[in-house]
Amino acid sequence: MKNQIHNEIPLFKQVYDFALRRIEGGDWKEHEKVPSVRTMAAKMKMHRLTVLKAYQMLKNDNHLYVKDKSGYYVQPKGIRVFTQTDNPIVSSYVHKNHLSEIHQVKVDYQFSKALVNPKLLPTKFFSEYLKDVLVSEPEILGTYSTIEGDEKLRKHMSSYFIEKNNMHVDPAELVVFSGAQQVIYLVAQTFVKRRDTVLLERPSYSMAIDAFRQQGAEIIPVELFPDGYDIAEIEQLMKKHQPRLFYLNPTFHNPTGYTVPADQRKQLVELAEAYGCLLVEDDTNYDIYFDEKPPPPIFSYDTEGYVIYIRGYSKYVSPGLRIAFAACRAPLMNILKSAKSLADNGAPLLNQKMFLHYFFSDRMQTHLEKLRIALSIRKEIMEEELDKSGWKWVSPKGGLNLWVELPGHIPVERLLDECLKNSISFVPGEICDPLKERKAWIRLSYSFVNENEIRSGVRKLLRIADEISL
Amino acid sequence: MKNQIHNEIPLFKQVYDFALRRIEGGDWKEHEKVPSVRTMAAKMKMHRLTVLKAYQMLKNDNHLYVKDKSGYYVQPKGIRVFTQTDNPIVSSYVHKNHLSEIHQVKVDYQFSKALVNPKLLPTKFFSEYLKDVLVSEPEILGTYSTIEGDEKLRKHMSSYFIEKNNMHVDPAELVVFSGAQQVIYLVAQTFVKRRDTVLLERPSYSMAIDAFRQQGAEIIPVELFPDGYDIAEIEQLMKKHQPRLFYLNPTFHNPTGYTVPADQRKQLVELAEAYGCLLVEDDTNYDIYFDEKPPPPIFSYDTEGYVIYIRGYSKYVSPGLRIAFAACRAPLMNILKSAKSLADNGAPLLNQKMFLHYFFSDRMQTHLEKLRIALSIRKEIMEEELDKSGWKWVSPKGGLNLWVELPGHIPVERLLDECLKNSISFVPGEICDPLKERKAWIRLSYSFVNENEIRSGVRKLLRIADEISL
Repeated sequence: MKNQIHNEIPLFKQVYDFALRRIEGGDWKEHEKVPSVRTMAAKMKMHRLTVLKAYQMLKNDNHLYVKDKSGYYVQPKGIRVFTQTDNPIVSSYVHKNHLSEIHQVKVDYQFSKALVNPKLLPTKFFSEYLKDVLVSEPEILGTYSTIEGDEKLRKHMSSYFIEKNNMHVDPAELVVFSGAQQVIYLVAQTFVKRRDTVLLERPSYSMAIDAFRQQGAEIIPVELFPDGYDIAEIEQLMKKHQPRLFYLNPTFHNPTGYTVPADQRKQLVELAEAYGCLLVEDDTNYDIYFDEKPPPPIFSYDTEGYVIYIRGYSKYVSPGLRIAFAACRAPLMNILKSAKSLADNGAPLLNQKMFLHYFFSDRMQTHLEKLRIALSIRKEIMEEELDKSGWKWVSPKGGLNLWVELPGHIPVERLLDECLKNSISFVPGEICDPLKERKAWIRLSYSFVNENEIRSGVRKLLRIADEISL
Repeated sequence: MKNQIHNEIPLFKQVYDFALRRIEGGDWKEHEKVPSVRTMAAKMKMHRLTVLKAYQMLKNDNHLYVKDKSGYYVQPKGIRVFTQTDNPIVSSYVHKNHLSEIHQVKVDYQFSKALVNPKLLPTKFFSEYLKDVLVSEPEILGTYSTIEGDEKLRKHMSSYFIEKNNMHVDPAELVVFSGAQQVIYLVAQTFVKRRDTVLLERPSYSMAIDAFRQQGAEIIPVELFPDGYDIAEIEQLMKKHQPRLFYLNPTFHNPTGYTVPADQRKQLVELAEAYGCLLVEDDTNYDIYFDEKPPPPIFSYDTEGYVIYIRGYSKYVSPGLRIAFAACRAPLMNILKSAKSLADNGAPLLNQKMFLHYFFSDRMQTHLEKLRIALSIRKEIMEEELDKSGWKWVSPKGGLNLWVELPGHIPVERLLDECLKNSISFVPGEICDPLKERKAWIRLSYSFVNENEIRSGVRKLLRIADEISL
């Protein structure tokens, strides 16, 4: 089974990626006719049907359109947003954020948001508590933060990472960001330009896929399994493609919930050094384990400066503060700081101070333990309800989601439409797939909904699935 | 005098820009040898001395280096940050933020920060006041903001803009950002790719210059005069270069303090429509007028969606909150929202709510009036002290800076070095000049220093200038 998945990239996919790079890199301009199937087939020494298949996929994915049989044309990125006007400055280089579009739909059964429900956060205590911060340090409102962020906060985080995550990081190796997404976005902006190669797990975080795609990167998928990666495959890919970076989410991975074992973490750093490939470790779920702590972060094995470590706290500490940390060794630090300073001149000091006082309160640490229990219970309830379905998933040991494979006779796109109509939302696996092929999978988050909502929501979901199954 | 300045771009500058585009666009790779002076001269049909002058400037500006007389080579951008290591992932596409580097120097006489001193802000009252916000709306800590930002805040700002700035803007035409710099950065990321042409005022905001340069844009300067632009010149430039956008700061311009008159504002929108050129109006100083209100923003003349309006409040309301607004008509809105959502998924809700309650308190509005008086007094004191120098400037009617021209016999770079040694900082005009030529000018901010610091600081500054004058 593994070997199958591990075959070389299929031919039509090579054409697909080749064309997509031309489009996103701007070599093939909007509304421009692309090479005919015949020409392309000759050029790439492939069968015409292979090229045709690729072109049709590109059409389905809204990258190409067909004009009255005269051939395939490049679909303007802007078209989605400019249909209501014929403004001449239609062309922008912005990329759609697929995930946020699903989130924007208001529903009763919120299975699409991988976010802890505010009701699970001690915000009332938080508010009481933070009043004192404002009074004791009024100057924080009138002061810019340094680019790297508040020194006291970085010192506390450094100790926290060392004690709780056996990850040694110096305060000088930490930068405060406004949410993990900002780090991902700036890493993409800073290290990746068109035609650069980037490794992404398959599946991966859809907003990361969007961020790297927007840069016109060539994205090479790395299969992720319940027991981690195929390290040999990764070495081959690094050797063959010399990727700029590998964006990975090795702990309670989003969306699968899988965790990469310690030995592989060590090996990854060795590969990174050997092939000069930056590792971007998104570790936002590290603290959300149910039974035992996950292995030390990959960053903890990095001595030479090949890892950028990302730890966001919006999902389960305070979305209202948007505090995240990036850690890296000296060689990368000034690059990260320059990027942050150009991007927004440093995170708001107020948020940093509030996070400092809140996160390191005893209350918060107790809250974390309660949260783990609450989430594991919700997970179990969701699994209980799904057991009846015959759908497949690997029970996660932490994190916020179930990654579920549906039987072939259930069309997922149709399922999503029907669910949204019935006030249920989930994330279709396709948008978590760099290749946009995984159409049989869905991500169900159990973190935002309460126990009753999970029970009735999943039951509703299964009913709908039955009704539409082919 | 105008006409002189309005001549076509000088030849050596054309070579300079041509080469810089190749370097920043990546056509000329790091450590790669660039075409010889001879070859280039032939290629561009220019005299070798012209090319040599351009290459030498590029060397001085740290874009090229000379290897043992064998020719000119491309200076790696990363080199500044990687000298301490021979890490193989040296090349990053990040650009230096010149301004923040000067700000990082701690000095007694802070003339480089165009920022209102926290002591001028009612932060004590602010803190007292905001406690109530946290108590009355504890949920804001546990909730993500929407991408566009809090609806109530956008409604209030909409009314504010209409009443106080005779600028009609609908709440649906506003997006909340984390500081004005974030809007500038995302506009650059979203609308500008390598080789696109961008118009920038000369001089301009150095962090905006950096943001557009980082995109590899071809930057065309637009001279700004005490009485505004030469509109005919702008039309020529738009006709000739079809720029993607014109980034401008028409009200109490940074660094000059000049304000563009109403008739020109109207004409600019007509030109933008005629030539499909986006206007990016950075209007952060609008509220900082001394005697009379400035004319309505350019955005107020925009009906078709050619203007992105930026209003930041870090400089004089609360740096600790980092709240800024971008306004644009429907055609541009979805692009702006997509960019924001990819960049950081929306501004922190806490900051938006606090700004809402703070900014629209009576106390804040009174504070604004006091602030105008305080700043105009500081400005007058600075001018009083400078009167003795024989240096030249146009007295600004608002804003935070004096833009001062020094006599030729004072070497500005040396002056900056000496001043930093003597705990005085200012901004050398060169970094505000897209062409990096204006070496005789400096920006002196009177907003961060108090009256006594201004008097003694400027006197010290003048003494140093005397000592080093040639």
